[in-house]
Amino acid sequence: MPKLEPYDRRLSYSYALGVFPALKLLEARPGSVSRLLLHSEGLRNEGVSLLREKCAALGIREEFADRVLRRESQKANCFAALVFEKYEARLDAGRPHVVLCQISDGGNLGTALRACLGFGLRDVAIVRPCVDAFDPHVLRASMGAFYAMNVRTFETFEEYRALYPDHALYPFMLDGAVPLNEAAADRPALYALVFGNEQTGLPARFARMGRSVLIPQSNEIDSLNLAVAVSIGAYVFASTARETT
Amino acid sequence: MPKLEPYDRRLSYSYALGVFPALKLLEARPGSVSRLLLHSEGLRNEGVSLLREKCAALGIREEFADRVLRRESQKANCFAALVFEKYEARLDAGRPHVVLCQISDGGNLGTALRACLGFGLRDVAIVRPCVDAFDPHVLRASMGAFYAMNVRTFETFEEYRALYPDHALYPFMLDGAVPLNEAAADRPALYALVFGNEQTGLPARFARMGRSVLIPQSNEIDSLNLAVAVSIGAYVFASTARETT
Repeated sequence: MPKLEPYDRRLSYSYALGVFPALKLLEARPGSVSRLLLHSEGLRNEGVSLLREKCAALGIREEFADRVLRRESQKANCFAALVFEKYEARLDAGRPHVVLCQISDGGNLGTALRACLGFGLRDVAIVRPCVDAFDPHVLRASMGAFYAMNVRTFETFEEYRALYPDHALYPFMLDGAVPLNEAAADRPALYALVFGNEQTGLPARFARMGRSVLIPQSNEIDSLNLAVAVSIGAYVFASTARETT
Repeated sequence: MPKLEPYDRRLSYSYALGVFPALKLLEARPGSVSRLLLHSEGLRNEGVSLLREKCAALGIREEFADRVLRRESQKANCFAALVFEKYEARLDAGRPHVVLCQISDGGNLGTALRACLGFGLRDVAIVRPCVDAFDPHVLRASMGAFYAMNVRTFETFEEYRALYPDHALYPFMLDGAVPLNEAAADRPALYALVFGNEQTGLPARFARMGRSVLIPQSNEIDSLNLAVAVSIGAYVFASTARETT
């Protein structure tokens, strides 16, 4: 078996750290998993036992790797991880999308993905330059949601748009034209919620590409945290859908 | 001047790190500020100039403290900070509250506070055991929102409740009885949104104390991130208020 390298975005594989996320990966993408890493102190953990059983049934090799687990998780108590090959997901053209332009913080991306899946939005485009979606820190912040979703990285927004020209665009902007609840109330079935990066938001040109959305907020704050804004947008669009269908 | 210690919850003072949060503190609680700390490389920064001006006008002493700034911020580019005495805030009995029971992650607390202020909920109770609200990491994650709010720590939920017995309680629970939008639609003027901790949520007994609220979400995720759940709850209660008044 090749030596396991410290995670780097150029590697062809990544690490699913922690029992719960690893189980999610095994459920969603069993074919991508190559190895099960175990911590010698975690063998009596119930989740670890379950994970070992499932891996054995799938013919996935297990090994002790205390040092690798500590290095990748930066925690003392990570009991298990899966090594898996990165894969390319494809967005479903028939479902609503979320588009994250130039998101830079891995924790924000993971947290936002988890909320999107929670509200039924499982197709997410990420536009470069951005954080690496396969970074173990992102995967962990998503609590395994990543594996059940279709997350794809694009070089530019235009590249995304060329593939999915029919989605009604809802760019979220601090000077958006329509308050969130109003925008969600008459949304079509096929839409894309578009968000800019943590520091600068979306460039002004996005306002002309669709119905720009404002999350009404007091002028006592500069802006909302990005993961919070994405989650609120996803919640309101999703819960409005539930009421009208 | 006494030597500045590494931050610890037992200290009587804390650090407001970064120009933007420091300006917020100066605006909200000028009387609590004792010293302005400057980084020798930040003097040409526009925000730093503004901060120095305001401190000079208030008679707050400035000093160079590159080492302290690097130590407290754990970043190379923190150009300024204020040292301030911790203060005790009092919740406004006539306004809605948010109650965070046993919140353990500082980033979550800061992010949740920022969203609460953004949606007009400025009175927040925190119930022990919990993260230290004056921790510089929390203050920074709140982007200065903390200073404009009334955040108070209580030993127990009962201690909070004894002081504010009239607020209608809305405990947020994974098995909550009423979906969020429905709960918000007929809320009274005086309410408290109550949240449990990251790992376990609220104990079951909270369901009997008020109208337990469910944020409808797919069973594909275990739960939402706590800061996200608080933010969505605050948004929906606040935006419903805007529509009916």
